[in-house]
Amino acid sequence: MPVEEGELYNLQTMDEPELNDNIQRLRAQLDEVDRQIVRTINHRALLVQELAAVKGEAGVALYDPKREEKILQRVAEENAGPIYDATMREIFEIIMHRIRDLESYR
Amino acid sequence: MPVEEGELYNLQTMDEPELNDNIQRLRAQLDEVDRQIVRTINHRALLVQELAAVKGEAGVALYDPKREEKILQRVAEENAGPIYDATMREIFEIIMHRIRDLESYR
Repeated sequence: MPVEEGELYNLQTMDEPELNDNIQRLRAQLDEVDRQIVRTINHRALLVQELAAVKGEAGVALYDPKREEKILQRVAEENAGPIYDATMREIFEIIMHRIRDLESYR
Repeated sequence: MPVEEGELYNLQTMDEPELNDNIQRLRAQLDEVDRQIVRTINHRALLVQELAAVKGEAGVALYDPKREEKILQRVAEENAGPIYDATMREIFEIIMHRIRDLESYR
């Protein structure tokens, strides 16, 4: 849900209670987005675990650096911002490495 | 969508084409989850930018370490795994810091 420009311009005519209401509303939205991020990253980890089980059965190597590089490239390509492509790539590298660590501890 | 135990046990009766189909299917699901992660992290950044605009108008400090610590605690509490709580906290610290960096460059 992108921010409408109009919303920002209206800020200047808001009084303090209105601004505080807005802060509370945005924080509630942030909390909901954070729950989605937690759920989605765990969903990724579950899929990687399932993939590891199938790969193990098929005798395919678990770690595939070429596929990982492809994922990181696509993540940067599909990134619409405002987070920089290089930053999104960095965030994904950490997520992928942490999920791989999880695999090797099992 | 958690992995059903039954799905894993059935792997042992699958032949190679079935296992390869499964690998392709899981990779397609991973790609879709990755798109969701990219979208959701950018949504978080947009909300933080909107919050910064409202806070600026209200004369409230942009950076609130207490609220940040509360977010990190809740993220760990709401984490259902398989990613460890401490790891999820670490991932969120990076996401939040990178979004804050974005703010200070504007």
